[in-house]
Amino acid sequence: MSENLTLLTDLYELTMMQAYFKNKNKNETVVFDAFYRENPFGSGYAICCGIEQLAEYIKNLHFDESDISYLRSLGTFDEDFIEYLENFKFSGDIYVIPEGSVIFPREPIVKVIAPIMEAQLIETALLNIVNHQSLIATKASRVCYAAQDDGVMEFGLRRAQGPDAGTYGARAAVIGGCNGTSNVLAGKLFDIPVKGTHAHSWIMSFEDEYTAFKEYAKLYPNACTLLVDTYDTLKSGVPNAIRVFKEMRDEGIELKNYGIRLDSGDLAYLSKEARRMLDEAGFETAVISASNDLDEYLIESLKLQQGAEITSWGVGTHLITAKDCPSFGGVYKLAAIMKDGEFIPKIKLSENTEKVTNPGNKKIIRVYEKKHNKIKADLICLNDENFNEKDDLTLFDPKEPWKKTVMKAGTYTLSELMVPLFIKGEYVGEKKAVMDIREYCMQELDTLWNETRRLVNPHNVYVDLSQKLYDIKIQLLKDMGR
Amino acid sequence: MSENLTLLTDLYELTMMQAYFKNKNKNETVVFDAFYRENPFGSGYAICCGIEQLAEYIKNLHFDESDISYLRSLGTFDEDFIEYLENFKFSGDIYVIPEGSVIFPREPIVKVIAPIMEAQLIETALLNIVNHQSLIATKASRVCYAAQDDGVMEFGLRRAQGPDAGTYGARAAVIGGCNGTSNVLAGKLFDIPVKGTHAHSWIMSFEDEYTAFKEYAKLYPNACTLLVDTYDTLKSGVPNAIRVFKEMRDEGIELKNYGIRLDSGDLAYLSKEARRMLDEAGFETAVISASNDLDEYLIESLKLQQGAEITSWGVGTHLITAKDCPSFGGVYKLAAIMKDGEFIPKIKLSENTEKVTNPGNKKIIRVYEKKHNKIKADLICLNDENFNEKDDLTLFDPKEPWKKTVMKAGTYTLSELMVPLFIKGEYVGEKKAVMDIREYCMQELDTLWNETRRLVNPHNVYVDLSQKLYDIKIQLLKDMGR
Repeated sequence: MSENLTLLTDLYELTMMQAYFKNKNKNETVVFDAFYRENPFGSGYAICCGIEQLAEYIKNLHFDESDISYLRSLGTFDEDFIEYLENFKFSGDIYVIPEGSVIFPREPIVKVIAPIMEAQLIETALLNIVNHQSLIATKASRVCYAAQDDGVMEFGLRRAQGPDAGTYGARAAVIGGCNGTSNVLAGKLFDIPVKGTHAHSWIMSFEDEYTAFKEYAKLYPNACTLLVDTYDTLKSGVPNAIRVFKEMRDEGIELKNYGIRLDSGDLAYLSKEARRMLDEAGFETAVISASNDLDEYLIESLKLQQGAEITSWGVGTHLITAKDCPSFGGVYKLAAIMKDGEFIPKIKLSENTEKVTNPGNKKIIRVYEKKHNKIKADLICLNDENFNEKDDLTLFDPKEPWKKTVMKAGTYTLSELMVPLFIKGEYVGEKKAVMDIREYCMQELDTLWNETRRLVNPHNVYVDLSQKLYDIKIQLLKDMGR
Repeated sequence: MSENLTLLTDLYELTMMQAYFKNKNKNETVVFDAFYRENPFGSGYAICCGIEQLAEYIKNLHFDESDISYLRSLGTFDEDFIEYLENFKFSGDIYVIPEGSVIFPREPIVKVIAPIMEAQLIETALLNIVNHQSLIATKASRVCYAAQDDGVMEFGLRRAQGPDAGTYGARAAVIGGCNGTSNVLAGKLFDIPVKGTHAHSWIMSFEDEYTAFKEYAKLYPNACTLLVDTYDTLKSGVPNAIRVFKEMRDEGIELKNYGIRLDSGDLAYLSKEARRMLDEAGFETAVISASNDLDEYLIESLKLQQGAEITSWGVGTHLITAKDCPSFGGVYKLAAIMKDGEFIPKIKLSENTEKVTNPGNKKIIRVYEKKHNKIKADLICLNDENFNEKDDLTLFDPKEPWKKTVMKAGTYTLSELMVPLFIKGEYVGEKKAVMDIREYCMQELDTLWNETRRLVNPHNVYVDLSQKLYDIKIQLLKDMGR
């Protein structure tokens, strides 16, 4: 990703900006919410990711000379507006749910409070960055859930949708639970573990498989995973690997982090046979890792149903492209406009009820069951509302408002989700190491019941509206004749 | 995409490089082929794309100080190898099929002839770049096929898998047939048309829809597409648009490039009603464009089965993520190793016959039916083979070699597909404007029969082996006991 992404925007953001600019009184302060409507992959939750890159983008936001001369060349923009762009600086506030948090549909992930021209400009890049990384982090958390305590390595770079997808995707994958990536650039940029073995070409470049294994083992005795399927896994690959391990043992070289990788064929059968052969030769500590078009469903099946003897997983294409759902449907909607110092709530109608937006300047309160520290519900409310843990709390379903739950005081705790990232254009966020965000994400996933984490038909966490917000929404709908 | 992508590689490329480095005699010159095994989307062909970015990557290939100090910090690499990296420069040859060409499974798209350490280093980035752009260009060509002569605009940036996916994806989409993108950065970088209208937020920021339309039309009378579904398409949006168009007509402002955009609801029904309303008001020239989760199947259905009155299409998520098949399965396999000045062919076995590689230093001859200038077959042969159009040409299916076709001299023409991109490390390619590559791609698509272009169950073009290459392959398999 190049440093200046200012032009990473849809043309219509700029034409609308100019239109607001020409309507001088139209640069009102507004509230935009970025949220999504449905969890990807049929998941019960998603993971918020990409906030760090969003911050970098906003910090670097400026139209440089080449941007200006390109825009001028389009013939669409007048000189007074071009001059405004030359001096453009983001001056608004941005609130976010921290990276690594579990998130749910319809709640604002990012809230932008800014003059409408500025809020409009940043829509596209904001969605691009947060959609992409949240998608991959969520997918990774599912793959790692299926792998239980086994290590999962991300190595999809060659199939990723371009360099950024591979690199920021690797970052997101680690935040979601992977223990490393093959992508060296991601390792450098984000200080995350890089891992790898060797390719079929390594084997093919030697006269025979044994020699190729032996040369590799001599060089990397401390990270010696041999790829055993170039010619024939059980007849050639595994016996040759065992021969090399034995020779090293005989030479007194201590083996650590060693084992084999299966990359084709029946992984369940091959892993069981390979385990038996390795164990019989006294290599009980040899790790069997596997790759080849794996995803969370295949890993779960291999572990739970097929008794595969695999304890380390390399996941490529399916993770880095989020193959079964390659987009995260984040949207960015106008929620309020400032008039005389007060935010007037705005709503977007749709024939599809799910697409009717939640109006106003809002925040999110997370409600935990005190006993288990698990999430009971998220409550979207107006920014100036306060709730006291000493009171009983009534939750109701905004689609079926007669369905109510009363949480007794003392049985629950509350926590506000959004934190400021920019205030009046100044960065006020806290840059965290990726491995710390990963650790935080693991804690966050622990606040979900297993019923919400399971891969298929998970229990959905409630996302409710406060009574006050609900009333405003209903009133707006009535005002519009609905 | 940042300029220096040298570390955009899998760690195992570097560990293998060091291993070759330590085996001094192992830096032999080799041939690697990048090819794919199956067309994405069930398509009958794919479009080659991303070669320009591959060239940029190779030109910029060098380990800078920060790369070196990062690699040193890993503790995996010895100082002699690090020193080699500090002086690394690509010195090999690269042959490619030109961007915009139609391509078929199993034929080399990119051929690298280089010392094995260099050939190995570039594997990951090469695949990443060519896989991604070929995927999107292919998808775009299908969407544009469905849209027939209508314009298709790419506007998926907000749902793309990161900034590069949006930007290089827009480039690929235009090469594949789109007539523009919403992505301003892509417009600047690649000199491709940028287009756009306005968002729902524009409407919502005014007191009423009419005023919002009117303000927009006053500013952009020459590119005035009004989004009509914010409140109610037929009761509010279209009547307000017509009112504004009438007022402009009455004011003597000539309308060009004007119309409406439908972004939700039943596009077939709404477009027919809107067409009728616009025509009755005398706006037969108003364009009806549509968006909302469109793909090639939906566009084809709307046009052919539902009689939709839409002549301009905005395609987002499904195109920019290649949603139904978000990865292009390009692989990179060792084909030959130089020994005493001659290439010794190499083969990779697999239990899956489709995965057995084609050995040797190869080239591709495209065979056209002279009468129609349509592709009859591609012939993969050894680099030193020659075919003469004055002879009859026998083609046979490498899977079922008894199936033969004889092309009589005079009924066919031949053309060699690959061109040099780098020779001895020097760039010898020809940089072409993206719009010229697009034009070339349209000509290329014309060399396919409609039976190969259709979206579902297309006729597959034959990719055959020359007798000489076939014999070598069979001999290698026999030598390995198969």
